[in-house]
Amino acid sequence: MTETIICPGFKAAGVAANIKKDGTKDLGLILSETDASAAAVFTRNLIKAAPVILDEERIKKGRCRAIIVNSGNANCCTGINGMKNALAMAKVTASELGISEELVLVASTGVIGEQFPIEKITAAVPEIKDSLSSNSFTDFAQSIMTTDTYPKIVSQKGKIDGKVYTVTGIAKGSGMICPDMATMLAFICTDAEIAPDMLKDILVTSTERSFNRITIDGDTSTNDTVIIMANGCSGAVIKNDSQKEIFQNMLDNTMLSLAKMIVKDGEGATKLVEIIVKGASSNKDARIVADTVANSSLVKTALFGEDANWGRIIAAAGRSKAPVKPDQIDIFFDNIMMVKNSTGCGSKAESDATDILKKPEFSITLNLNMGTGYASVFTCDFSIDYVKINADYRT
Amino acid sequence: MTETIICPGFKAAGVAANIKKDGTKDLGLILSETDASAAAVFTRNLIKAAPVILDEERIKKGRCRAIIVNSGNANCCTGINGMKNALAMAKVTASELGISEELVLVASTGVIGEQFPIEKITAAVPEIKDSLSSNSFTDFAQSIMTTDTYPKIVSQKGKIDGKVYTVTGIAKGSGMICPDMATMLAFICTDAEIAPDMLKDILVTSTERSFNRITIDGDTSTNDTVIIMANGCSGAVIKNDSQKEIFQNMLDNTMLSLAKMIVKDGEGATKLVEIIVKGASSNKDARIVADTVANSSLVKTALFGEDANWGRIIAAAGRSKAPVKPDQIDIFFDNIMMVKNSTGCGSKAESDATDILKKPEFSITLNLNMGTGYASVFTCDFSIDYVKINADYRT
Repeated sequence: MTETIICPGFKAAGVAANIKKDGTKDLGLILSETDASAAAVFTRNLIKAAPVILDEERIKKGRCRAIIVNSGNANCCTGINGMKNALAMAKVTASELGISEELVLVASTGVIGEQFPIEKITAAVPEIKDSLSSNSFTDFAQSIMTTDTYPKIVSQKGKIDGKVYTVTGIAKGSGMICPDMATMLAFICTDAEIAPDMLKDILVTSTERSFNRITIDGDTSTNDTVIIMANGCSGAVIKNDSQKEIFQNMLDNTMLSLAKMIVKDGEGATKLVEIIVKGASSNKDARIVADTVANSSLVKTALFGEDANWGRIIAAAGRSKAPVKPDQIDIFFDNIMMVKNSTGCGSKAESDATDILKKPEFSITLNLNMGTGYASVFTCDFSIDYVKINADYRT
Repeated sequence: MTETIICPGFKAAGVAANIKKDGTKDLGLILSETDASAAAVFTRNLIKAAPVILDEERIKKGRCRAIIVNSGNANCCTGINGMKNALAMAKVTASELGISEELVLVASTGVIGEQFPIEKITAAVPEIKDSLSSNSFTDFAQSIMTTDTYPKIVSQKGKIDGKVYTVTGIAKGSGMICPDMATMLAFICTDAEIAPDMLKDILVTSTERSFNRITIDGDTSTNDTVIIMANGCSGAVIKNDSQKEIFQNMLDNTMLSLAKMIVKDGEGATKLVEIIVKGASSNKDARIVADTVANSSLVKTALFGEDANWGRIIAAAGRSKAPVKPDQIDIFFDNIMMVKNSTGCGSKAESDATDILKKPEFSITLNLNMGTGYASVFTCDFSIDYVKINADYRT
């Protein structure tokens, strides 16, 4: 049994509204008992779902009470009706909860381009309101899953000026995961008190350090959304620089844990692999090389095959458009040096590396030996099941 | 039976030198009976195989007599020994054929990072010399295959000023195929007479129109090489603008045919799909969108699943970094309009599009409705077999 997850001052719920064909939970709700500071980051895809466009506007006020989320339909490329339906989804939720419509945010995930089943959501809102409870975060996490195989929740406690506070985060991922806003959806609740501007600042930084460092398939969704609510119920106040640093560290850890869960549960994934690039001309170049290796289909299929085929890694580095010195690249699998000056280190290194590839988690480090640029991203392998899942997704 | 392919004034051969583990042909040779003009284009990957580095130097003279090619080992990331071995491969060939070493070009394809079995090649050169004949181009084509499932040869005849000339091209592809020098290896022979500078100019243009428009998996090889030899045996002379235009057209067709064969035979591919983008702000932007759609794992797995999941197509367009107007995109499957102003055209269009997806070849057109920019690229679907082939490649 996992321990029950809560976040003081918040309630959650997840129910089946018959949006998904398989009858599983597909409508989730988070309610803060009091008005909360709020901040959010959204997809950089130019094609944005209706709920993203709505939330981008509403979050400007920095306040939120409730988030209503559905899976099974992305409400994207649904034209003028899509926006009407996103507004209606917020309105019926606000009305049922007796709160201001402006304080409700909306998120959707699922198939793009199908008309949105607003009547199913409207019908289910009374039931989800009745299901709200302080220990239903797992139901909420289940309700936002699409091809995820398990719910993703992290809850941590910290202390500021003697006051204990909680940060609870829920995410879903699985496909269309790529750096530049990586998670499909994530929601963070905290009972600490933080002003909206500082909250936004902390959220953007944590996003760079977590969701923007993961990739599953190089595709970026139209619906990516991360929302944080801070309702201050704990009495812990985040105001000065050192308080901010403590909370930043806590949120970094929470969001990186969620991000890694997303990669581990990547569609068909069997391995979580950290790609580290050091010795690049700049951090930016390091990141370009890391992303290219992390997204290479040939690298990812070799990882699935547990084949220490470092030629594909060095070839990806070479085509990345970042400068590399062709004869000076070193490659490590965990701490095993497999390549020195772009040449293989022999059969002993190869056999040691092959053992590392059998592990569920490991790192691959490229040292470009050019400068001090550094980057690290997380990826997974590319399996037969990824293709099966995505060939059949809508059927 | 396919008709025997020849190119007057050229001989070819392909033999088994025991480089590949399965005992199939893995060493190929093309010989021009007389000194030929020659031109070449190479991979833009910064990590280059030894034979590429050697050929880049030798091709500067614009002359060639013979090309020796092996499959089964890429001779890449093999350090100083790699270059010694590439030089030795040319030298032993030149010596056996009794021609100048400088007139021999070398190409390799296969696994990166394994030391090069030069002794096997040296041992097989006398046999391959004895096998040379004017009708052995198919043997040559077989000898350069890696995961290709069939040899790729195109031969066409044309006429200039009453003189018949031939263009015969051989290619291999299958994995690590991406725009920016796409084929692994291609060799073109013609008995027309063309000066090296003009030949280079024509080859670069044809490459842009063929091999640089195809993608299988977004990876670019370290060994990509296209070499053309023109030995003038036919007496047809390409010199003025109109002669050049005629030959350019012929070479465009030859190379595009080979490029399409490579995509059709992409690792695990079951479909050849042309991605056309029109109405973009510029041709460059059109190409960025086309490449992003053509390389999207989610689009490619949906093609494999014969699922008209246009949401993934529009999402790829939206994340491409090229400007798009989110509400103005139209999408066609062949001539069926499936999306108008970024919104689905309904179930009839969807069912018609699903029929098109069952075809082995079709086009997907995105009209961005912004300007006159146009691009077209060729891609294939992403299948379970792609993963199987690439997970097991070295074993």
